[in-house]
Amino acid sequence: MNKKIRIGLIGAGRIGKLHGDNLVRLVPEAELVSIADPFLNDTITEWAKSLGVEKCYKNAEEIFSDSSIDAVFICSATDTHADYIIQAAEAGKHIFCEKPIHYDVARILDALNAVEKAGVKLQVGFVRRFDHNHKMVRDTVASGKLGKPHIVKVTSRDPEQPPMEYVKTSGGLFMDMMIHDFDMVRYLSGSEVTEVTAYGEVLIDVNFKEYDDVDTAIVMLKFANGAIGVIDNSRRAGYGYDQRTEVHCAGGCVQVSNDLDNTAFISTPEGVTSAKPQWFFLERYNHAFVAETQAFVKAILNDTETPVTGNDGLMPVLIAKAAKRSLDEGRSVKLSEIEE
Amino acid sequence: MNKKIRIGLIGAGRIGKLHGDNLVRLVPEAELVSIADPFLNDTITEWAKSLGVEKCYKNAEEIFSDSSIDAVFICSATDTHADYIIQAAEAGKHIFCEKPIHYDVARILDALNAVEKAGVKLQVGFVRRFDHNHKMVRDTVASGKLGKPHIVKVTSRDPEQPPMEYVKTSGGLFMDMMIHDFDMVRYLSGSEVTEVTAYGEVLIDVNFKEYDDVDTAIVMLKFANGAIGVIDNSRRAGYGYDQRTEVHCAGGCVQVSNDLDNTAFISTPEGVTSAKPQWFFLERYNHAFVAETQAFVKAILNDTETPVTGNDGLMPVLIAKAAKRSLDEGRSVKLSEIEE
Amino acid sequence: MNKKIRIGLIGAGRIGKLHGDNLVRLVPEAELVSIADPFLNDTITEWAKSLGVEKCYKNAEEIFSDSSIDAVFICSATDTHADYIIQAAEAGKHIFCEKPIHYDVARILDALNAVEKAGVKLQVGFVRRFDHNHKMVRDTVASGKLGKPHIVKVTSRDPEQPPMEYVKTSGGLFMDMMIHDFDMVRYLSGSEVTEVTAYGEVLIDVNFKEYDDVDTAIVMLKFANGAIGVIDNSRRAGYGYDQRTEVHCAGGCVQVSNDLDNTAFISTPEGVTSAKPQWFFLERYNHAFVAETQAFVKAILNDTETPVTGNDGLMPVLIAKAAKRSLDEGRSVKLSEIEE
Amino acid sequence: MNKKIRIGLIGAGRIGKLHGDNLVRLVPEAELVSIADPFLNDTITEWAKSLGVEKCYKNAEEIFSDSSIDAVFICSATDTHADYIIQAAEAGKHIFCEKPIHYDVARILDALNAVEKAGVKLQVGFVRRFDHNHKMVRDTVASGKLGKPHIVKVTSRDPEQPPMEYVKTSGGLFMDMMIHDFDMVRYLSGSEVTEVTAYGEVLIDVNFKEYDDVDTAIVMLKFANGAIGVIDNSRRAGYGYDQRTEVHCAGGCVQVSNDLDNTAFISTPEGVTSAKPQWFFLERYNHAFVAETQAFVKAILNDTETPVTGNDGLMPVLIAKAAKRSLDEGRSVKLSEIEE
Repeated sequence: MNKKIRIGLIGAGRIGKLHGDNLVRLVPEAELVSIADPFLNDTITEWAKSLGVEKCYKNAEEIFSDSSIDAVFICSATDTHADYIIQAAEAGKHIFCEKPIHYDVARILDALNAVEKAGVKLQVGFVRRFDHNHKMVRDTVASGKLGKPHIVKVTSRDPEQPPMEYVKTSGGLFMDMMIHDFDMVRYLSGSEVTEVTAYGEVLIDVNFKEYDDVDTAIVMLKFANGAIGVIDNSRRAGYGYDQRTEVHCAGGCVQVSNDLDNTAFISTPEGVTSAKPQWFFLERYNHAFVAETQAFVKAILNDTETPVTGNDGLMPVLIAKAAKRSLDEGRSVKLSEIEE
Repeated sequence: MNKKIRIGLIGAGRIGKLHGDNLVRLVPEAELVSIADPFLNDTITEWAKSLGVEKCYKNAEEIFSDSSIDAVFICSATDTHADYIIQAAEAGKHIFCEKPIHYDVARILDALNAVEKAGVKLQVGFVRRFDHNHKMVRDTVASGKLGKPHIVKVTSRDPEQPPMEYVKTSGGLFMDMMIHDFDMVRYLSGSEVTEVTAYGEVLIDVNFKEYDDVDTAIVMLKFANGAIGVIDNSRRAGYGYDQRTEVHCAGGCVQVSNDLDNTAFISTPEGVTSAKPQWFFLERYNHAFVAETQAFVKAILNDTETPVTGNDGLMPVLIAKAAKRSLDEGRSVKLSEIEE
Repeated sequence: MNKKIRIGLIGAGRIGKLHGDNLVRLVPEAELVSIADPFLNDTITEWAKSLGVEKCYKNAEEIFSDSSIDAVFICSATDTHADYIIQAAEAGKHIFCEKPIHYDVARILDALNAVEKAGVKLQVGFVRRFDHNHKMVRDTVASGKLGKPHIVKVTSRDPEQPPMEYVKTSGGLFMDMMIHDFDMVRYLSGSEVTEVTAYGEVLIDVNFKEYDDVDTAIVMLKFANGAIGVIDNSRRAGYGYDQRTEVHCAGGCVQVSNDLDNTAFISTPEGVTSAKPQWFFLERYNHAFVAETQAFVKAILNDTETPVTGNDGLMPVLIAKAAKRSLDEGRSVKLSEIEE
Repeated sequence: MNKKIRIGLIGAGRIGKLHGDNLVRLVPEAELVSIADPFLNDTITEWAKSLGVEKCYKNAEEIFSDSSIDAVFICSATDTHADYIIQAAEAGKHIFCEKPIHYDVARILDALNAVEKAGVKLQVGFVRRFDHNHKMVRDTVASGKLGKPHIVKVTSRDPEQPPMEYVKTSGGLFMDMMIHDFDMVRYLSGSEVTEVTAYGEVLIDVNFKEYDDVDTAIVMLKFANGAIGVIDNSRRAGYGYDQRTEVHCAGGCVQVSNDLDNTAFISTPEGVTSAKPQWFFLERYNHAFVAETQAFVKAILNDTETPVTGNDGLMPVLIAKAAKRSLDEGRSVKLSEIEE
């Protein structure tokens, strides 16, 4: 297959630039052709030029109408994702879309329907599935050598809380942060979540209360295959990005610890010190961002299913909604209550 | 203080013999004087003799009526604990009692009242408080240097399931097994549990269902100080005794991993292998059993409060009852519902 | 500084391609302009084209005579390094040269003289200095917070032995393999080696004997600052690339373990398994190859000294020669014997 | 076998008391009957009484002449070991003797001859062989599953330097401290040392120079089976007792790290801290002291060879002498030079 996949990038913010850089530098089978951003400015244009990209637009429409484009990366604001997916699908482009697809389930379903109707590929940006550590947990469970999963555990703590400006529109801890962990438990367990119970508190910054949000939470989960699980989240770990997963199965347990900045440890009469976990997602999941992009391009080239499908984009949103309702109503909530 | 504490041991089963051995070999300030067991036989008598103990009785009454005895170790069947506590207290003996004090809250309160009235000391056998690892977690939290606790986590998995004969009368997973973890979260957090929600399943052996029991469980907890927590239990880990604790606080996180049989790791082209966690409580908490005994004797000698009080014996039973109710009724249960 | 450093690459073998790829993808301040390789073929030309490099030559002379070129990367056969350095220096190009500069000390001195005379920069490819782990050991020692170094230890074992075809011309274990460790001990200790004693054996493959070489060796070292040290090498570890360093100082010890493929460990009744060390230098020092290239370009841009100087290229060759003599003569050898 | 082994203890210093306590508390097949110490005083007598030992002597002769005694523990000053061994052997007692047997090879041979002639058992106190970690290294190598040993490494660093009063009569670092490591490399490799080369420096305390001693040393070793090895020693690590061993074999590597005070690690924005290695030999080898005593008593009861024989007592002394000569003469020294 000699032809390169021609890609248009929508949204040149932090995550859009990351994908753009990775596509140009580390995905030789792809060619980044054009970039669209409603806030197009000199910085973006210069960055594009440094990557050898000549076409810069304000309007994503220009990408959709370019018949030479094979696929788009949707990295714009969350509330535009569903619309862009529909437009891209109707234009026959394959789609990589950042998470979440939308906060509104009906809009997600609209988008998924458009994708299905057009027969294009869709991959959602749950990047942690491509991390070497979590992937090893999942592969071990999926291999079946440890037998059926019994207990699924995920710890996910951010190094520092986001600005309140961000919190205001983030959709809340469950939709914005724990949504990655909801995807992770589905990925690790190989099963669907059927019920959740959420505990959440404001322990770090009282301002979270203003936005009906929490900064610390634990959620218990039931899975269709009988397993049970738990996720704990904190908006501020302070010591780095705490990202650990564990699945205890009938025949044993597989677990991962954090990636550290280095393996050094220093022993003195005062004590033993070692390196902290890598700071945040750009450091920890750096290689995983590359891998998810490569996987997307490969799925197009080989005409195979993408490794994170539209349904994988939908389910964590449903779980996040169930978790929020559980917290609000102080009771366990079945996923079937949300799906209706 | 030259006088030795003279001790009578009630119940010469596995745990009674362990305490007896430890008292004789490793607690020089104590003297084991007499042993009572309703199933007194030659094995027990010979064991007693090997420890230099001459007085062996069938009836614990003989110990209570011996005015030379300062303290008793109650290691008999759980349903006898409360009665023996009351009798010992009325006879003016200090009391070390294995956990739990009783399955019935009213009986526990009777026992605690008798102890209070008599002014004797009572220590309950929550041995894990004396483990070097968990103690380090607790001491770090208690020191305040990490700030307020936010998230408290305990993993506790037995290496193998108990015989069904035992399960039948064990009181169930929450009362028999997770009760140690309920004590542990109180110990680690320095706060009282106010609410729990329990998920539990039968995943290991369907026979647990016959006894209205589960073999795998996760319980979320709320604490009076605002923290939230989670405990996961499995009746069969297979790879050893999985005993890990973690407290994430405002200023950082303290956590412990398992003690292993040795520190060796072997690297070959096939992979890297290392030692398993120590097998079960006799191996892992071996030193802690000695330490709790030494602490009890020291509390008597120095006339200080015991490190695990009557209230510490009561609270985990209340939490276990709340957890069982939560599981049965599929809802969160406040401790105040049980206390009434 | 807007101008890019224009670079010519000499030698398009494995290591040359690695540097070429890194320069194009990950060093935005550099521009790879031309490539020379005496065995120029279609594969090289296509690879060059994929990087956007149009000029491909058989003769390195064409690079030296191109006045638009600022710097060269010398990645050709070892016996050509010194000649190319001299030609590049005389042409006023800055020089990055793979290790070792030459097997012959006189030729090295010729090269270093040419560099000095021309006033160009020279950096030698001791890539491990740029590894996150070893750098942490060095920085800790250099900070002085642990006091004076007492014991310096390096373990370096290749995953698998090289082909005998390679061994034949490699210069032997000390010159080809342990030379990296001789550089490392200078880097970690911040001091010069004054004496060595070598033990070496053929334990892996008797064919090493044909080439007067060993496959397993330990070398003890004395340093000018009073410290003593030891390096152990094996041509075949089997389990991966074993790369560990340690410095014990007056006030404590700093040490690093290997980077593993992932942090997973799997616990079953059969035992606990975890990931192996990263396989070989391309995996383990991947990031360090990028970093050394960036550092070289930065030194040119900022007109500062390169982090691995000509003298740093010379000294390990002297130590390797002393080690070989020690092995051959069965006695300790002072560096001063070689320097003469 | 119902009869207990009746034991007389010679020398009630720190190590003698340790053995006495262990025998009484933790070796039920043994009975400590009498204690002899030339500096017998009330402290010793009271300690003896607390263990239930009535017979206390100034003169070890009283133990040798007591026909009811089966075995002796020689824990007196090193220069008395050989004489006591000879007397004990002639009296038909089995012998446990602390290391080293003597500084003088001729005296050791006299002692071993007496033992052989009398047909009694002799065990030398190389306690580290009974450590769970090092034993795992040795057992793995001895199992043959990793193939032939290639590289044997031992790190052994004391937490703090001994008083100069002790250094004066210690026999020097090689005879007093590294002697344990000389035993360890024989134990781990399953082979005899044939040659050593020693580097040693005074880096910690210049007073060591007064006694012709060093405080920091590295020794390389050759083994009869072709393996090579290295030991590094420091008289002052500061951070605890650094006790690590490693054997790299044809098919892989087995290595152990230190036992730590606990498994806790604390993560904060300032860094990650964990526990130090256990402080010194009484903490680290506590269980090994018990195990060596149990092994000695078991060897008598079962009439099997002791696990540390007279020859095992002799060889490390020869190696220590070779190491000292190597250091003094600045050259490699063959063991055969010492044996003559």
